[in-house]
Amino acid sequence: MSSRRHDVGVLVEHARQGQARAVARLISLVEDGAPELREVAAALARDTGRARVVGITGAPGVGKSTSVSVLITALRAAGEKVGVLAVDPSSPFSGGALLGDRVRMQDHALDDGVFIRSMATRGHLGGIAWATPQALRVLDAAGCDVVLVETVGVGQSEVQVVALADTTVVLLAPGMGDGIQAAKAGILEVADIFVVNKADREGADQTIRDLKHMISLGRQGTVGPSWRPPIVRTVATTAEGVEDLLAAMEEHRAWMLSHGELDARRQRRAEAEIEAIALAQLRSRLGDVLRGSALPGLAKRVVVGELDVYHAADELIAAFGGS
Amino acid sequence: MSSRRHDVGVLVEHARQGQARAVARLISLVEDGAPELREVAAALARDTGRARVVGITGAPGVGKSTSVSVLITALRAAGEKVGVLAVDPSSPFSGGALLGDRVRMQDHALDDGVFIRSMATRGHLGGIAWATPQALRVLDAAGCDVVLVETVGVGQSEVQVVALADTTVVLLAPGMGDGIQAAKAGILEVADIFVVNKADREGADQTIRDLKHMISLGRQGTVGPSWRPPIVRTVATTAEGVEDLLAAMEEHRAWMLSHGELDARRQRRAEAEIEAIALAQLRSRLGDVLRGSALPGLAKRVVVGELDVYHAADELIAAFGGS
Repeated sequence: MSSRRHDVGVLVEHARQGQARAVARLISLVEDGAPELREVAAALARDTGRARVVGITGAPGVGKSTSVSVLITALRAAGEKVGVLAVDPSSPFSGGALLGDRVRMQDHALDDGVFIRSMATRGHLGGIAWATPQALRVLDAAGCDVVLVETVGVGQSEVQVVALADTTVVLLAPGMGDGIQAAKAGILEVADIFVVNKADREGADQTIRDLKHMISLGRQGTVGPSWRPPIVRTVATTAEGVEDLLAAMEEHRAWMLSHGELDARRQRRAEAEIEAIALAQLRSRLGDVLRGSALPGLAKRVVVGELDVYHAADELIAAFGGS
Repeated sequence: MSSRRHDVGVLVEHARQGQARAVARLISLVEDGAPELREVAAALARDTGRARVVGITGAPGVGKSTSVSVLITALRAAGEKVGVLAVDPSSPFSGGALLGDRVRMQDHALDDGVFIRSMATRGHLGGIAWATPQALRVLDAAGCDVVLVETVGVGQSEVQVVALADTTVVLLAPGMGDGIQAAKAGILEVADIFVVNKADREGADQTIRDLKHMISLGRQGTVGPSWRPPIVRTVATTAEGVEDLLAAMEEHRAWMLSHGELDARRQRRAEAEIEAIALAQLRSRLGDVLRGSALPGLAKRVVVGELDVYHAADELIAAFGGS
């Protein structure tokens, strides 16, 4: 017990020094929901909020991983320390790579200014929604200037992951018009920057026109100055347009800072995280109350018709409050 | 407000006298989750637990509704008052009938010893899981000797509905071997009685052999006397075997009474219902606490790194306890 506590303190210290093994070990701890999770969170609290967190999302096949890879290269060239969290079972970072992708990733793997980590789903995406904010704090503590969070842009839990980002980049590709259509509902709200990747392919102009139309529809009724998501053309396989994407990311950050939006987002994010944790703990505490409680007696009174279930629930909650 | 209160009292009184309109109106109230729900529940508490509740479940096409119809006829012939709750979008009681079924149902519709009610899904099955126990209490109060609850035997919410029954009848039909296979996981645990309907069709013997094998496997490792689900052959379209089914139902009831199992089931059922209501109310109360609470301040301290999310959640829960 005390040796474990010691371990966490040492690991956090080593992670702060940028040691890759300590970073990996801490992320494994939070991913496992290990008993040390609370301890890790407490130790990392003061390191929070330095890294720029950029979400990269989009349907399978649009080139997310290749884009992440060229972003890493460009950010490293600018002297920035980069973390990557891949929350995407189809990502090469998660082991589902094409050979070409793997080779490209291995370049980064040898670079000690890059931490790459895939968050294993372990069968339950809900777990990822829990672990990812803590994993992000680990990378933040390790001194990453930028953390890229890669997700496939579908599913409730992944939306929660996207909500972690300061800036969300939504990738599209030509010839996936159905994809735009299908994604319409959700992506306008989350996208800070649109990227049309594979922009050398036929249909890229049409995709951009469709997007512009969608963005202008989405802005109808908006009052006052707000961020208008730019559309960046890239060809990730040749790194074409990656500088434009970095510029758009910088521009969005500057806009957020000048409009108080960065603070507002981090505030909302912290509120949501605290609330989720509190609710889970209440549920678990209710379970404890039930296991040694008034419930059997209350249920018996319901069975014999002395009490209805709503009043029984009221009494149970009263017992809960007093525990 | 007070006129509504008056209404509920009058409705409950009329329902106790067996007036069909009052029964229908009360079930609508509980189905809507109307503000009167608590009031209805309180007024009905003392009427609980008289009716025998029989769940009828099985895959679409096995003949559930036809079986329910012949059961109604047989129970009526024995002088029993019968309620039917159809929690099945494909049931003729829910409006998805073949003409033949509809005509058959209409016979019962003219019989004032029969209350038939389909529980509308209204897009959320969770709602049905909530409303069905209350609807059952309404039918109980109205003097039903037997309430048949018809469900399609798939899905989490329907499992909850099945859990309402004192006796659960699982229907199968020959030539749906895949169905047995698929259902294996769940039906052994819930089935008190198996019915192989359409028993005049080819393959009925094979279905029964498969079932027997499955039951014997399921009983391996069981210690002491326990109920062994009988297999009843029926041809619901001609009412063949319906007397055997009624006999099996009686036998199961007698077994439950002599083994304390009926009380045990009703106890478990009441506990589960109270717990679900208490949890929902806690969640809603937490929402109230959050809306006017310490959360923004706690989140701010997390954002600036003074506090980690777990300790923030602890403080939030402390505020909740004091509310």
